[in-house]
Amino acid sequence: MSEKTPDSVTHPVAASGIDLAPDLREALSRVRIVLVAPSHPGNIGAAARAMRVMGLSRLVLVQPQRFPDPEASARAAGADALLENATVCESLDEALKGCVLAFGCTARQRGVPLPELAPRAGAERLLAASADGDVALLFGRESSGLENSELQRCQSAVHIATQPEFGSLNLGAAVQLLCYELRLAALAALDQPETPASSDAVDRRSDPPATQDELEGFFVHLADTLDDIDFHKGRGSETVLARLRRLYLRADLDQREVRILRGILAETRRAAGRGQQSE
Amino acid sequence: MSEKTPDSVTHPVAASGIDLAPDLREALSRVRIVLVAPSHPGNIGAAARAMRVMGLSRLVLVQPQRFPDPEASARAAGADALLENATVCESLDEALKGCVLAFGCTARQRGVPLPELAPRAGAERLLAASADGDVALLFGRESSGLENSELQRCQSAVHIATQPEFGSLNLGAAVQLLCYELRLAALAALDQPETPASSDAVDRRSDPPATQDELEGFFVHLADTLDDIDFHKGRGSETVLARLRRLYLRADLDQREVRILRGILAETRRAAGRGQQSE
Repeated sequence: MSEKTPDSVTHPVAASGIDLAPDLREALSRVRIVLVAPSHPGNIGAAARAMRVMGLSRLVLVQPQRFPDPEASARAAGADALLENATVCESLDEALKGCVLAFGCTARQRGVPLPELAPRAGAERLLAASADGDVALLFGRESSGLENSELQRCQSAVHIATQPEFGSLNLGAAVQLLCYELRLAALAALDQPETPASSDAVDRRSDPPATQDELEGFFVHLADTLDDIDFHKGRGSETVLARLRRLYLRADLDQREVRILRGILAETRRAAGRGQQSE
Repeated sequence: MSEKTPDSVTHPVAASGIDLAPDLREALSRVRIVLVAPSHPGNIGAAARAMRVMGLSRLVLVQPQRFPDPEASARAAGADALLENATVCESLDEALKGCVLAFGCTARQRGVPLPELAPRAGAERLLAASADGDVALLFGRESSGLENSELQRCQSAVHIATQPEFGSLNLGAAVQLLCYELRLAALAALDQPETPASSDAVDRRSDPPATQDELEGFFVHLADTLDDIDFHKGRGSETVLARLRRLYLRADLDQREVRILRGILAETRRAAGRGQQSE
């Protein structure tokens, strides 16, 4: 969590332990709940209500089929302000812009070999990372969840384990469950300010984590460079690129590391360019 | 209440022993979810779905306003058997008959001086008590919750802490949340912690981790390649190399990833070498 705690000044009551609400809202204010292509406006409303009741405020909708919609407002049951402030995006890129970490919720195990976290551990990690900037938790379509290309934008999958033969949570219920865990993680972090919320060892890196768009810029640069040095030799590039993407996402790059890696790519292209010109 | 657990018959695949579903269902089979006077059949359906997805099976309805109802079936989304097997009671007495323990869910603190438990602790206690017989978890009306006379039938209240100024969970969401905690409690009791087991991410990579000497070989190759493409331009290389080393060590490379990275370095050197030869 941030070193500064302005809320303890502006909300003295919170320091008494009587009312944690303002501190909690602050702690949860950097968590974006991102619904990718939701079909049913009722589920958008249910998600808004689920968020609001747990103290979350930032709803992001990527290509919702119907929004705004009276059904969303009806199911929001008082969380209208949250719906009104929802951000509607054309692309996942836009939704994740500026985020330092993104996790994707999955109902079942997928082909994408992402690290997989239970809801509790996932919520703890997201909240710990929110000290460095915005974080995002992605929920997929009601019918089919997140596509692999969308999951590949995530550092980890959050898997809600359910009965194997009946594994599908309602979208609103999944949002409710994760927002509940995020709230508990935030409460734990507020209660024990000296203990890191995450179980990770404290990483003393001084540079800020790379944002999602910086990472995507690096991946494009990497793909182009592999073409320049003719790495694939006519073979398909998807498997290797997906593998490299996972590797670098796992490494939790900071901004300076992305700059170094892109510096290497730039020099590589220059060297390869000279080579090709000479032929 | 029925002693039969028809689900274990109708879903033989669950009995294969590959997953924990049958043990879990058994562990959860003595937990009754009791909805007291629900007004909206949609919420009954949502509760059924929330139960089923977490492995609970015993739904008890006390004086439901409308049941059965197509809206309940629609929202149950496949948990029809659970709805069909639901017990409809005229009184709370009937619903609690034979129970060794009953907890009542409350959205806010009430006049009744009951011991109050968080969902996690409440679920653990209910499950522990279910070793001795049936236990019940009561949920009140959508509009006003449980009446005091109903809460007085309970040994404890389970209080879902929410934002104080916006405290009302949807009934289906409350059932979802408690069923999730009951499932986690049952898994813990089975001594089979939820997968992934700890807060550590489980990465389903199939390749063996890189050995120390493979990693060192990669670092030497990387350093040589940076020289070849004249990355350092006369500046000292130590800081950058140390930084790259930390980055790649953090990524926990597997053997295949090291091969891919070294393949890229080899192609980079070839491209650069051609360039230099041409000068």
